[in-house]
Amino acid sequence: MRIAIIGGGAAGMSAASRIKRLRPDWDVKVFERAAYVSHAPCGVPFYVSGFVRDLAELCAYDTDFFREKRGIDVHARARVVKVGKGFLEVVENGQENTYEWDKLLFATGARANSLNVSYEELEGVLCVHYIENGEKVKEIAARSEKIVVVGSGYIGLEMSEALTRLGKRVILIEKEENPIPDFDPEIGAILKKVLENKVDVRFNEEVVSIEGKDRVEKVVTNKGEYECEMVIVAVGEIPNVELAVDLGVKLGKSGAIETNSKLETSMKSVYAAGDCAETVNIITGEKDWIPLAAPANKMGYVAGVNIAGYKMEFPGALRSQLTSFYDLEVGKAGLSEKEAIKKGFDPVSATIKTKSTARYMPNGEITVKLVADSDGSVLGLQAIGVGVAKRIYAASSLLYKKSNVKDFFFVDIPYYPPESRVWDPLIVAARNLFRKLGIP
Amino acid sequence: MRIAIIGGGAAGMSAASRIKRLRPDWDVKVFERAAYVSHAPCGVPFYVSGFVRDLAELCAYDTDFFREKRGIDVHARARVVKVGKGFLEVVENGQENTYEWDKLLFATGARANSLNVSYEELEGVLCVHYIENGEKVKEIAARSEKIVVVGSGYIGLEMSEALTRLGKRVILIEKEENPIPDFDPEIGAILKKVLENKVDVRFNEEVVSIEGKDRVEKVVTNKGEYECEMVIVAVGEIPNVELAVDLGVKLGKSGAIETNSKLETSMKSVYAAGDCAETVNIITGEKDWIPLAAPANKMGYVAGVNIAGYKMEFPGALRSQLTSFYDLEVGKAGLSEKEAIKKGFDPVSATIKTKSTARYMPNGEITVKLVADSDGSVLGLQAIGVGVAKRIYAASSLLYKKSNVKDFFFVDIPYYPPESRVWDPLIVAARNLFRKLGIP
Repeated sequence: MRIAIIGGGAAGMSAASRIKRLRPDWDVKVFERAAYVSHAPCGVPFYVSGFVRDLAELCAYDTDFFREKRGIDVHARARVVKVGKGFLEVVENGQENTYEWDKLLFATGARANSLNVSYEELEGVLCVHYIENGEKVKEIAARSEKIVVVGSGYIGLEMSEALTRLGKRVILIEKEENPIPDFDPEIGAILKKVLENKVDVRFNEEVVSIEGKDRVEKVVTNKGEYECEMVIVAVGEIPNVELAVDLGVKLGKSGAIETNSKLETSMKSVYAAGDCAETVNIITGEKDWIPLAAPANKMGYVAGVNIAGYKMEFPGALRSQLTSFYDLEVGKAGLSEKEAIKKGFDPVSATIKTKSTARYMPNGEITVKLVADSDGSVLGLQAIGVGVAKRIYAASSLLYKKSNVKDFFFVDIPYYPPESRVWDPLIVAARNLFRKLGIP
Repeated sequence: MRIAIIGGGAAGMSAASRIKRLRPDWDVKVFERAAYVSHAPCGVPFYVSGFVRDLAELCAYDTDFFREKRGIDVHARARVVKVGKGFLEVVENGQENTYEWDKLLFATGARANSLNVSYEELEGVLCVHYIENGEKVKEIAARSEKIVVVGSGYIGLEMSEALTRLGKRVILIEKEENPIPDFDPEIGAILKKVLENKVDVRFNEEVVSIEGKDRVEKVVTNKGEYECEMVIVAVGEIPNVELAVDLGVKLGKSGAIETNSKLETSMKSVYAAGDCAETVNIITGEKDWIPLAAPANKMGYVAGVNIAGYKMEFPGALRSQLTSFYDLEVGKAGLSEKEAIKKGFDPVSATIKTKSTARYMPNGEITVKLVADSDGSVLGLQAIGVGVAKRIYAASSLLYKKSNVKDFFFVDIPYYPPESRVWDPLIVAARNLFRKLGIP
């Protein structure tokens, strides 16, 4: 069997590894445009801040590891230019080669969204979606004083922290009213206050154009102009589906490749996994596009099992997220209240602020917002402050298993004064919802 | 309606608060032997170490709060000496009073186990199960050089840390081969190494007698003698059930008061909650005695709802635990492998050691052991190292909802390089069990 995998990121390499483990004698080829495989761009902000010294550390393993230890035929710096039924054409080492496949996996990932404004291709305008950009960002940042970051999602936040840690002046431009706009405003408002101490934040502003000669000189918004020597664009991403479309593979509503729970596409023997593919949102039960590293890895694993001729189903994802800005941790699992309303739910919510640990321990505060449907099913949890990770771990676990507010109340999470509260914030939030839902 | 609650700890005060919230006009009396109510002895080690300055901080609220804000008729320093059908006799303020009740709640808690050796009542031999002992422990510790701690469960560990932080020489005596003996030896062995750097640990040793004149002078074990000026006894606890037995209330196999999911005892209108009562172990489905603060509070809440004439069921507990010894965190949810075998399961297990966060972040290691039944149902998780709390939060949540190894693999917990791994240790442990269970 000849397996071709397009894309050597998380999903592609997970799939390749799984197939070779289950079918050591199969021919598994991975085609990756970049020089690296198994790349983890989530680490780029930590490279820029100097926390991680070497970009290569951001790759789980190098190409030699996959070739020698796992027997995967990795083609790095290899650009797939055409995919046809049973073959594909690849530009590598300055020449074009054709390879045949019996089964094909699209693991083409996603690319950074652009702002769609003029002069976005000026030198100094960068995204951090690719590991290769890390070097360039770090280098240009080193000789810049003022840097504009566009977008205050988790990448925008992490880059703002990295750059301010380097002593740069950061202007953060967000078109919404609050940072991390997929969170509810109660949570965003807490982050806003802390953000404003460190960076020059401009909310409700949209970038109209970027100007400069050769190199970027300023960013123009609908409200003002900001001189700068560098711009980081962090306004989301779009799935890389062009090759799949050319082959005739069906896309879902989100624009990513439609898949079923076995990660099969609309076309026989063609699979898709990771950031280029749709999955199921466990909360809504609907198809959704959730381009995050943790589900991407598992989708690759499941695709690999199925490609190898065994059977495994991917249950979907929750869009669980965790980030931080300096000492303030921020996390979310499932839906925010505004997302729930948009999805047609009739939610109730409780927002509570409390110390993260036993009252008498010297520790900070956490704010959690629990959102539930009118029948008590929990739709999501957001948290900000100190001790956020463990609450998001618990909430992700409960949401994954479909829980109601009573489950959030009765879940037996441990009490240890330096780490938690005997009435954990999760439990208090659930208890607050009892009242709104008529539970005694 | 006249409600009598014996015991003003976590369960008693939770129940009292709930009843007054649902039935503001009912007469709710709480009888508590100590001067404090709502006491939280979990904080005593942190008082002894000086981390918490004032013992009163270890009480969630004082008696005035409960009297004035919640309308609960709190009787502190009130010892119930007899309980009969419809009445009880209380010694308080030097006199004996009789009160009548229509519904009664036993929230009598548990007391520290004694060693059952001679001279255990010598001055300087103490347990930390009662908040009042905190003061005495701190005072005697201040003038002691050498202190023996008996028992290496979480209280023994936390006290060993508190006392070594004060510069004391601690001899820790444990009758089993490893510390925290309800954990499996792989986990205990890791703790052992760290413990040995800080305290003089004696495993496989049993205390035979305690000797001294007026004050303790030495501890004699089956293997040696240890001079000391103080002994902390931390060898478990037993439920306070004497008053319930006198009334004719049935005990369970564990020796604690038998209850159903509404926290009703064998006797009409008589309830039990907290450390004196049995509950259900969610993993085994069997009745179990789980004297821990988090379930105790919730049992009190549920008992209160039912006493007030509404209906709520307590689903049971997992014996989730979290503690630490200096920088080493230790946690457990559900059963260890040896506990599972004892309960008749035929378990498989995977123990993995990995960094707690992304490989390239400067952070420590975590070891997790996942135990599952032969059908793939997860029975328990143990963890030791760095970043333990969030994994125990997730495992507790998954176990509470009854999960199998696939759930532990597919649960969508968030990836953020400084906090977690893209393949979280929980997930890796689950994947390792796939092989043993024949999952591809």
